[in-house]
Amino acid sequence: MDTKYIFQKENFSLSNDELLLDETLFHNANGYIGVRSNYEEGYPTNFKTIRGMYLNGFYDIAPMKQAEKLCGLIEEKQIMVNTADTQGILIEINGESFSLFSGEVLKRTRTLDMLNGTTSRDILWRSPSGLELNIKFTRLTSFYMLPLFLVKVHITPINFSGTIKITSTHIGDVMNFFDPTDPRVAGESHRHIEVKNVIHDGNATILHAETITSKLNFCSAVSHKTKAARTKADGTTKIFEYDVNKGETIEFYKFSILCDSIRYPDYMDECIYLIKTAASLGESYFYDKQSEYLRKFWDNCSIDVDGDDDLTIALRYNLYQLLQSAGKDPNSNIAAKGLSGEGYEGHYFWDTEMYMQPFFTLTERETAKNLIRNRYTILEHAKQNAKILGHKQGAAYPWRTIMGRECSGYFPSGSAQYHISGDIAYAVIAYYLATKDKSLLAECGAEILIETARLWIDIGNYCEGKFHINEVTGPDEYTCLVNNNYYTNALAQYNLNWAVKSVQMLKEMGLADHVLNKTGVTDAELAAFTSAADAMNLPFDEKLGINPQDDSFLQKKMWEAHTVKEEETPLLLHYHPMYLYRHQICKQADTVLAHFILEDTQSLETIEKSFAYYERVTTHDSSLSTCIFSIVASKLGQVDKAYKYFGDSAKMDLFNTHKNTKDGIHTANMGGTYMAIVYGFGGLRIKESGLSLCPVLPEKWNSYNFSFLYEDAKISVKVMRDKTLVTLLHGTEKQITIKGKSYALINEIEVQ
Amino acid sequence: MDTKYIFQKENFSLSNDELLLDETLFHNANGYIGVRSNYEEGYPTNFKTIRGMYLNGFYDIAPMKQAEKLCGLIEEKQIMVNTADTQGILIEINGESFSLFSGEVLKRTRTLDMLNGTTSRDILWRSPSGLELNIKFTRLTSFYMLPLFLVKVHITPINFSGTIKITSTHIGDVMNFFDPTDPRVAGESHRHIEVKNVIHDGNATILHAETITSKLNFCSAVSHKTKAARTKADGTTKIFEYDVNKGETIEFYKFSILCDSIRYPDYMDECIYLIKTAASLGESYFYDKQSEYLRKFWDNCSIDVDGDDDLTIALRYNLYQLLQSAGKDPNSNIAAKGLSGEGYEGHYFWDTEMYMQPFFTLTERETAKNLIRNRYTILEHAKQNAKILGHKQGAAYPWRTIMGRECSGYFPSGSAQYHISGDIAYAVIAYYLATKDKSLLAECGAEILIETARLWIDIGNYCEGKFHINEVTGPDEYTCLVNNNYYTNALAQYNLNWAVKSVQMLKEMGLADHVLNKTGVTDAELAAFTSAADAMNLPFDEKLGINPQDDSFLQKKMWEAHTVKEEETPLLLHYHPMYLYRHQICKQADTVLAHFILEDTQSLETIEKSFAYYERVTTHDSSLSTCIFSIVASKLGQVDKAYKYFGDSAKMDLFNTHKNTKDGIHTANMGGTYMAIVYGFGGLRIKESGLSLCPVLPEKWNSYNFSFLYEDAKISVKVMRDKTLVTLLHGTEKQITIKGKSYALINEIEVQ
Repeated sequence: MDTKYIFQKENFSLSNDELLLDETLFHNANGYIGVRSNYEEGYPTNFKTIRGMYLNGFYDIAPMKQAEKLCGLIEEKQIMVNTADTQGILIEINGESFSLFSGEVLKRTRTLDMLNGTTSRDILWRSPSGLELNIKFTRLTSFYMLPLFLVKVHITPINFSGTIKITSTHIGDVMNFFDPTDPRVAGESHRHIEVKNVIHDGNATILHAETITSKLNFCSAVSHKTKAARTKADGTTKIFEYDVNKGETIEFYKFSILCDSIRYPDYMDECIYLIKTAASLGESYFYDKQSEYLRKFWDNCSIDVDGDDDLTIALRYNLYQLLQSAGKDPNSNIAAKGLSGEGYEGHYFWDTEMYMQPFFTLTERETAKNLIRNRYTILEHAKQNAKILGHKQGAAYPWRTIMGRECSGYFPSGSAQYHISGDIAYAVIAYYLATKDKSLLAECGAEILIETARLWIDIGNYCEGKFHINEVTGPDEYTCLVNNNYYTNALAQYNLNWAVKSVQMLKEMGLADHVLNKTGVTDAELAAFTSAADAMNLPFDEKLGINPQDDSFLQKKMWEAHTVKEEETPLLLHYHPMYLYRHQICKQADTVLAHFILEDTQSLETIEKSFAYYERVTTHDSSLSTCIFSIVASKLGQVDKAYKYFGDSAKMDLFNTHKNTKDGIHTANMGGTYMAIVYGFGGLRIKESGLSLCPVLPEKWNSYNFSFLYEDAKISVKVMRDKTLVTLLHGTEKQITIKGKSYALINEIEVQ
Repeated sequence: MDTKYIFQKENFSLSNDELLLDETLFHNANGYIGVRSNYEEGYPTNFKTIRGMYLNGFYDIAPMKQAEKLCGLIEEKQIMVNTADTQGILIEINGESFSLFSGEVLKRTRTLDMLNGTTSRDILWRSPSGLELNIKFTRLTSFYMLPLFLVKVHITPINFSGTIKITSTHIGDVMNFFDPTDPRVAGESHRHIEVKNVIHDGNATILHAETITSKLNFCSAVSHKTKAARTKADGTTKIFEYDVNKGETIEFYKFSILCDSIRYPDYMDECIYLIKTAASLGESYFYDKQSEYLRKFWDNCSIDVDGDDDLTIALRYNLYQLLQSAGKDPNSNIAAKGLSGEGYEGHYFWDTEMYMQPFFTLTERETAKNLIRNRYTILEHAKQNAKILGHKQGAAYPWRTIMGRECSGYFPSGSAQYHISGDIAYAVIAYYLATKDKSLLAECGAEILIETARLWIDIGNYCEGKFHINEVTGPDEYTCLVNNNYYTNALAQYNLNWAVKSVQMLKEMGLADHVLNKTGVTDAELAAFTSAADAMNLPFDEKLGINPQDDSFLQKKMWEAHTVKEEETPLLLHYHPMYLYRHQICKQADTVLAHFILEDTQSLETIEKSFAYYERVTTHDSSLSTCIFSIVASKLGQVDKAYKYFGDSAKMDLFNTHKNTKDGIHTANMGGTYMAIVYGFGGLRIKESGLSLCPVLPEKWNSYNFSFLYEDAKISVKVMRDKTLVTLLHGTEKQITIKGKSYALINEIEVQ
């Protein structure tokens, strides 16, 4: 067995902080359902826990009052709802309650098995009266049957025979987590679900609940498989009693199904059907299916670093989390924290398109497609949002959302980040370039490109022959509401050009009817797109030879990042926004990100100077920053620096370096570490001009390899000290540029 | 009697809208206590009323939650509290309740008598059963005894004899007004006072209450003077019964006293003492004192327009309201709505310094002095506010406040308006220039100048040899968080220079000890002030020959004000802020205001071009705008235009042109109309270089005159068609420039 798919903690700490962190790190999810790794039996009452089971895209509405009302400000937000709690499993041995906080824990291990798709908790416990047991919990959220959450418990008495009682709960009366002291999670308690009905059907209990404001519905069902001497029921709680002999193992399986009204119009019937089906198929079936699914997954996206096993595990952990987090249907997307916690309230950001979609575009196309389709399902909301912002046309995608309406309460670093519309357009184009799949463009991609292009026309204006985009915020939230943010303008230019290009391509293929009918776009309008793109104002400073982040960035007070004190970070928690806006200080990659995604817009010399300049003033207070700096450092041949930046980001959650992993994983950073290898060290680029690689190898590694899909082909890359091997695993011959030289990839190419 | 001191409405409408408006228009106030002109007997229950009695500077704290928490954002605000309600007087005639909404109102008149300082309501009423009475209510808030509110009721039966019952209430259980549909007043109901105790002392009832959060205290006392046949008491309510004969008049006087714990440490003793004193002095005493006070007031600030009596009344109305609104001690200032209503929650803004203080500086120096002292009492809060905003030094005056802490919930058009610190500095300097009173500078003025100058140093930074002030908002709230707002920079320059000058002057006079000790300012720091002032970046556009409102104003999309549709105004209620920020569109005078207050900073040609430019893009959605455009039009010799702008603003409240006078008067606009005559048409300027006039006469007027104080002198100006008379009413000889020519003013000068 390849141990680099195993992440394990032995004799883990029982401190509350560690428990909260591990609730995130060991959570189970499958893109639809997410379950935090709470203890089945709970913690002591004075412990804090974020106990939750979530459904991707399933939300309620919460008020978000503005301190001062102004036209168009957002006054309510969607929040990911904590649904029913089916985690509870209490164990009593001869009347003594099992708990890690009583008696003596002789051994304990938590494991995430990324090949088999399970987490487990393995405990050797001595009760206060001296009874010794081995108890192992194994959890799975099924990639095969998305609504299924399965818990297995095996209990083995070591030094006694006696009675064991298992109490299994199914609770509908749950709330979302709140913490009034932390601005990054909800500060107020709101009840979001109401139980409407409880049904007993055979061995299953089914609970029907409705969200308070959004009026969405879900059903949760629970059934058990075990051989107990006695069973009884108390409402939705079931109690199982066993007479056990020393050395004998009790097996207990708890099946939970969660069906929501978004995906399942007949959610109750479906829930009942699935709980019966799951129970009758049995646990082994799902373990097998899970392994099978993951074998395919790892086969598609295998990644390996020879010379740093921990890193390989961290990388795989990251990819596994992306898989767990990504919505598997067009009704959902990837939340900033995946399905691992309530940080950012389950909202979807630009993180998807710029940090996570690349991974799926290169390895799991169905997911990438769904992500684009999800943005298409909310296109009408984006058009409505544009109207709220005063625009006469176009689609302004919400900065943060679940179902499509904007949820950003502070618009200068929310709605003002118009670049998200360009980011979504960029992802549509990237998917096309990697797949050459015109059908998705015809179905929805081109329409997204047209409507976002229309937005740029409406935001911008000509001034002295240049097309200006004023009063927007780029990715760097430490400078808001600026004019001609380089990143935004460069992306808008790309968006405008590709809107025109996509319509032309579809017309040539006879596939343009849908987009032309839906958008009514005319040749004159397309010509206006081109004119604006051609005239786009891309700020450039002659003296420094760099692209200023925006028109006025360089005239502000310089604040060198190395002078920022540790205790002042992240700066946003310690300085009034206006103070930050008044300085040359960046939270994260902004112009440097533009230099990665649109590298041909500037000369290498400009990119090099820009990189050096922004390095001086970037604090990397955002988890989205270092991976981008790593990629551009690789591009510039600064491999040691690239490696340094990479190291900071790859292990962020496993080492909790941002101190808030308890609220959920940083999914975008996980995608970013993948990008830092494939686009960074590997130098992969997929452009209109074709496929290219420009690999470098960090000093500390012996080699690394990865594989990816390109058009009809699958290609693997192995970068070693003395050579690089590029192999066409399947598909037709490809032209590929490696380190600037063009090759025909038929079977394998070896480059020194 | 001069009827131009009388504002009267006969047979006024009884619509709810009109009643709400008249509650404001006929309110009584004296700078300490303010009472809305609510009907003593109330309205029908389905009518809306903003029933209130306020104390200037007396506040409670209300929460103001931010939609997204960010460092330093304001999360609570002060609000002017509605105190006890002593207005209630219910009248029954032979068992029939008097109400303007039953029976028949044969005649009705509301009057504001600005010479005697009273309001009255005179009604000829026929009851449903046919009884006819004359009822007259007369109200006064005393300028002599500030805590006193006095209501006189005279009732005369016309066609019957019978029984009349008067029920007089004194209610502590009151709330502030709220309206969830209007962003300009409080949207939520909060209880702000709690009655702690009720005391009966002789004929007086005294009520002691405390504010819920700020824990301030006040006492209200009520006593009556009347000759009733029978009286009884029910708690704080008193009932008086009379047996009256046809033609006989009942006289009823209700004395109320309101003492707060801010001014009166022994507020309860003081309240009891004052209610007894007031009752024993008797009503006539206060009527006489009131007339005496107002004779002096009008004598100091007499203003008259021959050829437009309505305008003369409107002007006097405005000055009278300024007198009613202005705090009479350093504990208070002038609220944006005076003491006439709850709009803007009783907050003090820059309106004081830039629009109202000029009137007091020229006519009522004690009040002007108190306003400066009030800003000095909150200097420590302003320093604290600077720290909240990230600054290492200096005083950042709050954009809106009562007791000194910032109450602005939306910082881009709140705290970002740093110019308020410059405005306060400007008012300190203006007071000095008009009075040459170095003692106030020594006492507090210079310290304010130093601390505000320090703020500019901390906000700004040098860039290519120029001193930049970035990320601030000028007076025009339709463009926020800009770089180098011309108004702000020009004012900062003036502030910095005068900080240095004031210390020099005080040193020369041997008066500098206090400011040097308090601020610790060094010669090096003063030199840095001068350097920054000298290097101040004042944006100038060579091509247009104007001062751009800020660095990027001219590159934005042009939105000509004449194309704005009526139904879109004010724009702030119809467009998202970001949309406004992205356009060349101004809410109000900004650069044009700078061209008035600091006219020597630019050439006349630049000012003329700027004026023409900003005219095109200004909507005057703020009531602070047209008066400034009028002044600058006068300066430029565009008298017809000046007259047009002036006409729009002088009668704003009397004609309710902004449709929100119900929430209170627009005190700043009232000061602005005064300025439009004295500084505008009269062309008065008081600068370091001396006193000057440059009078023009609007076509429609025959003449106008005004008088003002200058140094030790009082000077009157009468501008006629063919000549201007300038008279030294008292004081020593002055040098004066009239229409560019210098004169010695000994007795009178006549200029053609």
